Amino acid sequence: MTFQLLATDGPARRGLLTLAHGTVETPIFMPVGTQATVKGLTPQHIRDCGAQIILGNTYHLTLRPGDELIRDMGGLHRFMSWDRPILTDSGGYQVYSLAHSRKITDQAATFRSHIDGALLELTPERVVAIQENLGSDIAMCLDECPPADTPRDYMTVAVERTIRWAERCKSAATRPDQQLFGIVQGGTFLDLREHCARELIALDFPGYALGGFSVGETAAQMVAALGPSASFLPANKPRYLMGVGRPEDIVAAIDCGIDMFDCVMPTRNGRNALAFTDEGAIKIRNAKHKRDSGPLESGCACYTCKEFSRAYLHHLFMADEMLGPTLVSLHNVTYYLRLVARCREAIESGRWTAFRSAYLARRASGVYDESFDGKEMT
Amino acid sequence: MTFQLLATDGPARRGLLTLAHGTVETPIFMPVGTQATVKGLTPQHIRDCGAQIILGNTYHLTLRPGDELIRDMGGLHRFMSWDRPILTDSGGYQVYSLAHSRKITDQAATFRSHIDGALLELTPERVVAIQENLGSDIAMCLDECPPADTPRDYMTVAVERTIRWAERCKSAATRPDQQLFGIVQGGTFLDLREHCARELIALDFPGYALGGFSVGETAAQMVAALGPSASFLPANKPRYLMGVGRPEDIVAAIDCGIDMFDCVMPTRNGRNALAFTDEGAIKIRNAKHKRDSGPLESGCACYTCKEFSRAYLHHLFMADEMLGPTLVSLHNVTYYLRLVARCREAIESGRWTAFRSAYLARRASGVYDESFDGKEMT
Repeated sequence: MTFQLLATDGPARRGLLTLAHGTVETPIFMPVGTQATVKGLTPQHIRDCGAQIILGNTYHLTLRPGDELIRDMGGLHRFMSWDRPILTDSGGYQVYSLAHSRKITDQAATFRSHIDGALLELTPERVVAIQENLGSDIAMCLDECPPADTPRDYMTVAVERTIRWAERCKSAATRPDQQLFGIVQGGTFLDLREHCARELIALDFPGYALGGFSVGETAAQMVAALGPSASFLPANKPRYLMGVGRPEDIVAAIDCGIDMFDCVMPTRNGRNALAFTDEGAIKIRNAKHKRDSGPLESGCACYTCKEFSRAYLHHLFMADEMLGPTLVSLHNVTYYLRLVARCREAIESGRWTAFRSAYLARRASGVYDESFDGKEMT
Repeated sequence: MTFQLLATDGPARRGLLTLAHGTVETPIFMPVGTQATVKGLTPQHIRDCGAQIILGNTYHLTLRPGDELIRDMGGLHRFMSWDRPILTDSGGYQVYSLAHSRKITDQAATFRSHIDGALLELTPERVVAIQENLGSDIAMCLDECPPADTPRDYMTVAVERTIRWAERCKSAATRPDQQLFGIVQGGTFLDLREHCARELIALDFPGYALGGFSVGETAAQMVAALGPSASFLPANKPRYLMGVGRPEDIVAAIDCGIDMFDCVMPTRNGRNALAFTDEGAIKIRNAKHKRDSGPLESGCACYTCKEFSRAYLHHLFMADEMLGPTLVSLHNVTYYLRLVARCREAIESGRWTAFRSAYLARRASGVYDESFDGKEMT
């Protein structure tokens, strides 16, 4: 793996990350392919959206179809027919958000499957073995990710455990073609973030993630903690903010020096008939779109906007046709990938501050849907 | 419109049908786009499957989003972004299969919408006006389509009404770029079929359909009646067998001189995890496919078979992912279109009898699913 910093503009960074399955331009957004598929889209669609790297969920894939089956089928890339880079998470987050009857000790996280109630155990060693079976380009360490309202005492326990688990993950890793990233926890306690970052840096990971954001704190609290948290990380390694978020959160986070993002928002909202545009959210089920012959977003070059009207998309959702979720998801994923491409361009050309301010102001004046939810819960 | 007969081999015919939006090679299969979308597939997918013409349902489109809305949006082609030919049915069949509280008189078919119970009326004139609003290349006359067990007395009434309605449809038609086909009814009463055909031929339609097949009779009864029924039609006009059917039914019907087909089987079965192959049906949910790294059908050049294993498709259905129905539908539509392409090639090269016999024998030895259902019910 190599990570080249091509340009900076303030804390914002423009980079090039070379992985086993190809090169990724940063800042980048990673569409989420939870169960070895980005919901509703073919791999061809995902490429057409401009995706350079996607995310797979270790928790889901371990439960179904199983990481050993995927290994036997030639790995996750071949299984899902995606030949560009893949990042897999550690499954730790879903243990908190989805599993039942969980119990966390230093040895392991034990829990019951949300699918069939089976008793399962994730250890740092097992999480690395699973991700080696999946064959992702980037694997993540197992971490403990408490919610935003966790008291300092317990957050300290979680940070120490996250550090010990990171050591064990690093010791367990064997694949030279897979990069294992460390995850910094600590909530909004900046001294805990700094401590966690320092300990992980001592372990010398090829990249670092910020976990435990967008877990219940306000957007303002998150952005306030992000800048310092990012500054604790080495400049020459990629920085990944896990599970965030709204387009404006991504722009704000790039302004804190973050390089990589993932979020289910474009696809989940796409399935729910909500489209992202620079002017705000379009609720395509709204009757005002019934006779609108214009595209979701004028100027968008995605297949949906080139070929179909709002009136048609409205019809598809009213008639409960599968093509509706597919086409709006396709637009939304394109929107997110176009957004990070615009950010890269602005950073390269020294226009970052102007771009960021204009974008955030434009978004702030748009109309949004209060049901937006930045995190992967399923 | 022109219809050129390029070759015949016994009753089987190879032709070229030129319509307002392009040329169609016959025999042809038309994927069904009930609600202005072939379920689960983008227009790009449908083109990639090899589709040359698709079918839209007048009943459904009239109820939702409405034919006047589609007209105002530039017609059905533009609305759904499909630039090749479209055939629309008359809605008559759905009045029988879907609507509530129907009442048929010579004046009109009145019924309640299956969506919201609204009271609606279809007359021959209205059916033509709707299809002119939709702007299809081929429109169908309103007919009365009784089930297979209808006594001769009532079948006679239905045939006479179908003839009178065909006259009224023809008088009502105004679009020179749209071809109006007549529909022959009569069930398995061959003298009624002959009478109906003769009366419609006197009206000089540019093409003729056989309706009232696959409405409850056995496949053997249908095939026995098909040959004579087709022979009552002029050789120089295209012949369309409505709503049929299984692959072997299509091959048997081509052997009776039929040129055009539509059926929901490839997409409906695709959504239900059932794939068509020359060897029989593949139920992809079956556990035996869980670790099968082979394609649905070896030798198939469709996107699904080129890119994905049975194991992956099995996983998608077990995980209830939208991509499963999309990918199996895509294979099935390709299978049907490849089948008619093979038929065309066999007729052209004088190998029709050998091809037909070998195909039907191979299918007869395959394993099928008893839930196969040849008719459009939704």
